[in-house]
Amino acid sequence: MRGFRDYLPAQMNARLKMIATIRSVYERYGFQPLDTPAQEFRVTLMGYGEENTKQIFAFQNPEEEDVALRFDLTVPLARVVAQYPDLVMPFRRYQVAPVWRADKPDPGRFREFIQFDLDAVGVSSLAADAEILCAMYDTLKALGIERFSIRFSDRKVLNSLLDFAGITHERSHSMFRILDKLDKIGLDGVAAELTKGRVDASGDTIPGLGLDANQVGRIKEFIALPKGKRREALRSLEKLFAGVGSAKEAIAELTFICDSLDALGISEQNVQLDLSIARGLDYYTGPVFEASLDDAPEFGSVFGGGRYDGLVERFLGRTIPAVGASIGVDRLFAAMEKLGLHEFAPSTAKVIVTIMEPGQLAEYQKLARELREAGVNTEMYLGDEKSLGKQLQYANRQQIPLAIIIGSDEFARGEVTIKNLKLGGQLQDRKKAAHGKEREEWLALSRTVQQTCPLTRCVEEVKKMLAV
Amino acid sequence: MRGFRDYLPAQMNARLKMIATIRSVYERYGFQPLDTPAQEFRVTLMGYGEENTKQIFAFQNPEEEDVALRFDLTVPLARVVAQYPDLVMPFRRYQVAPVWRADKPDPGRFREFIQFDLDAVGVSSLAADAEILCAMYDTLKALGIERFSIRFSDRKVLNSLLDFAGITHERSHSMFRILDKLDKIGLDGVAAELTKGRVDASGDTIPGLGLDANQVGRIKEFIALPKGKRREALRSLEKLFAGVGSAKEAIAELTFICDSLDALGISEQNVQLDLSIARGLDYYTGPVFEASLDDAPEFGSVFGGGRYDGLVERFLGRTIPAVGASIGVDRLFAAMEKLGLHEFAPSTAKVIVTIMEPGQLAEYQKLARELREAGVNTEMYLGDEKSLGKQLQYANRQQIPLAIIIGSDEFARGEVTIKNLKLGGQLQDRKKAAHGKEREEWLALSRTVQQTCPLTRCVEEVKKMLAV
Repeated sequence: MRGFRDYLPAQMNARLKMIATIRSVYERYGFQPLDTPAQEFRVTLMGYGEENTKQIFAFQNPEEEDVALRFDLTVPLARVVAQYPDLVMPFRRYQVAPVWRADKPDPGRFREFIQFDLDAVGVSSLAADAEILCAMYDTLKALGIERFSIRFSDRKVLNSLLDFAGITHERSHSMFRILDKLDKIGLDGVAAELTKGRVDASGDTIPGLGLDANQVGRIKEFIALPKGKRREALRSLEKLFAGVGSAKEAIAELTFICDSLDALGISEQNVQLDLSIARGLDYYTGPVFEASLDDAPEFGSVFGGGRYDGLVERFLGRTIPAVGASIGVDRLFAAMEKLGLHEFAPSTAKVIVTIMEPGQLAEYQKLARELREAGVNTEMYLGDEKSLGKQLQYANRQQIPLAIIIGSDEFARGEVTIKNLKLGGQLQDRKKAAHGKEREEWLALSRTVQQTCPLTRCVEEVKKMLAV
Repeated sequence: MRGFRDYLPAQMNARLKMIATIRSVYERYGFQPLDTPAQEFRVTLMGYGEENTKQIFAFQNPEEEDVALRFDLTVPLARVVAQYPDLVMPFRRYQVAPVWRADKPDPGRFREFIQFDLDAVGVSSLAADAEILCAMYDTLKALGIERFSIRFSDRKVLNSLLDFAGITHERSHSMFRILDKLDKIGLDGVAAELTKGRVDASGDTIPGLGLDANQVGRIKEFIALPKGKRREALRSLEKLFAGVGSAKEAIAELTFICDSLDALGISEQNVQLDLSIARGLDYYTGPVFEASLDDAPEFGSVFGGGRYDGLVERFLGRTIPAVGASIGVDRLFAAMEKLGLHEFAPSTAKVIVTIMEPGQLAEYQKLARELREAGVNTEMYLGDEKSLGKQLQYANRQQIPLAIIIGSDEFARGEVTIKNLKLGGQLQDRKKAAHGKEREEWLALSRTVQQTCPLTRCVEEVKKMLAV
């Protein structure tokens, strides 16, 4: 089906490992798991910009109520906070779950994808925002990514930019959306959309915002502010916005975040102040952040979030401050795949018990059970192939490292042969040398490829071979 | 929303632990993870009995194609097997995911629930069926359940029952459904539905199947067969069906399963041959099984499955044999809750860093980071409460065992106080004794409740206190 995918075992094993890694970082910070239903009342999901409403998979339940599949995990979180008055605050939760959007599917753009969110609700202190940034940093490091950029800014900076450029606040929504495209359409594209509009690559006409040259000039001054070194960027902003009264709060917030990052020892290389960050969603009210991978920039933002002090209020009628971030698991997974950071193991079994003598099935069953009871992930071969060669071929395709072979001879002697398929493959790749040191090495390797031991010592021997 | 639930952290921590336990048993058997989308084409999900079609949440996608939310994980598995011709066989997969049914919601009956399935596809050997039974046994044991009953039979026994009772095979579907209700409506209810019909508790009329007294008598003879001891039940069946030619295959299959269970050392107490098992779904073709908890029988079948050699054929046009079982995670979770087998921990954090001097935030941040880097799950208190009492109250509600306190005095001395909140609670529960051994014990306990150490040794000390 367009926009949907199956995850076969090799991909799933990599995905599960990735999710377990993220989970352990979040729990390290004391975040706790939450789960909510896939379906929400449609009205709960409305009002986050026209686009999102169009993107919803909506239908009716048997009671003919309008329901829809959730399109993110933040709105359900806000609904939960409003619904359970006894929830202990601060409520620090993570949630990893699929979300659905009825988008036009593209390569790399899906209608069902997993999000992994962490949020702290009921925290006004910006120390929580700094902690989210720090958790983002630790998460990407824990996933084995060294070269990444987490960029942050503050939504209030953009509000001050409106004052600085003399633009009314009613137009903020349109303007932020345009600024958010800077990475995609470049400075000229942004300037065109701010003034007369432009025709995009697919021939569609995008109407302009109708700003004048003076206004655009001020915006360009802002865009030209230096990125990178946090304190430097902060000082430039202070200078540019010196005459803008509303900028004081934004600068105080960013200063607080910079202080925290310094205290936490988070390097400038990975976490930068970038004042051009806007983030599309309407509901952000303070610091905003997003992360991309330096060696896979084409995947865009893989992790992003910010402070949204007004969202719970929409459900509850009173303000509960909150801040959080979300990983696009599938996008980050794809970016990590490009960087070669996944191990795609078709099986996590360590041993296969081959079946050479079907009449002796009970013996094979007993041995498989003993191995499992000893904690060894063990598959008993139960397919239709009778020959050892075909059964080992299966094991090789599944990348199972050890095979246990008990044929009629072995049964007669009460023995078992354990074959190391991984080393066996290496042995085949290396030609047997005729003499000298290479011959010695080849022989040594061949001796470890296959071993015979009494059936009673099989489990012990397997554990030894797996420990190497 | 009716039929849907949120899982708050304490429940989620218990659920995640349960799922991790099941996963590790399945991987012990060499089963591998699969994931499929929540949505399938509606036509894929049709044809598994009228009931299921009614139970589907169906809607249209933006291309106006009829799609629906999956109602189980077995049909998507069959679709996957048919769709990927390169899949290595046997394909042994597990999948844990939500499914949706537009059922009438009841207490304990939900419209979204998690299933945890394991299946082996491409295996004709009944050793696979025995292995599934063995995995079911190990799973329930691993979850800490001692008293449970896995009952198995074979769909072919019921086909032979039709021959034995002189009933045409076209009526098998209706008859099996009635037999399947034996636990719920009793022998009289079953007899009524097999003949003239009956009026159920809610006043609905259930039409009868119109069998005659002779036929019902034969069915009653069958139902009266002894349960329990596997060999005994098997011998009674052989005797009853001695004149039924079609019974040979069923008896051979059940004998094979009994042999395997003996070889695997699976006790009669937990795994029984119960010939009355039918399982509702049409697609079973061979052995069938289901499990219930002896001390929570009201939850019914929490784990069930069987062989379904014909299901993949519906998609592929050729037969691929398969066998599997499914856990109703939510139902089993509820049954385990009744038995007191869950630990409902609101937090997995081990330490809370309280904030006594907001001006020293950087020091608290540094310490929290050090603890996290040392592998200790640590929450920094970021709520609005300023007093130590209120912050410790939060930690107590979250059941976080250790609190770190650094007030102005501690800062001046470069020290930190570590308070054991868990022991502290016990200390409060025990009155301070005036003299003797009890006084000694109280003093010893009070000394371990709170410790002061240099800030530089805090991480070390915390690890020591957590290790106790």
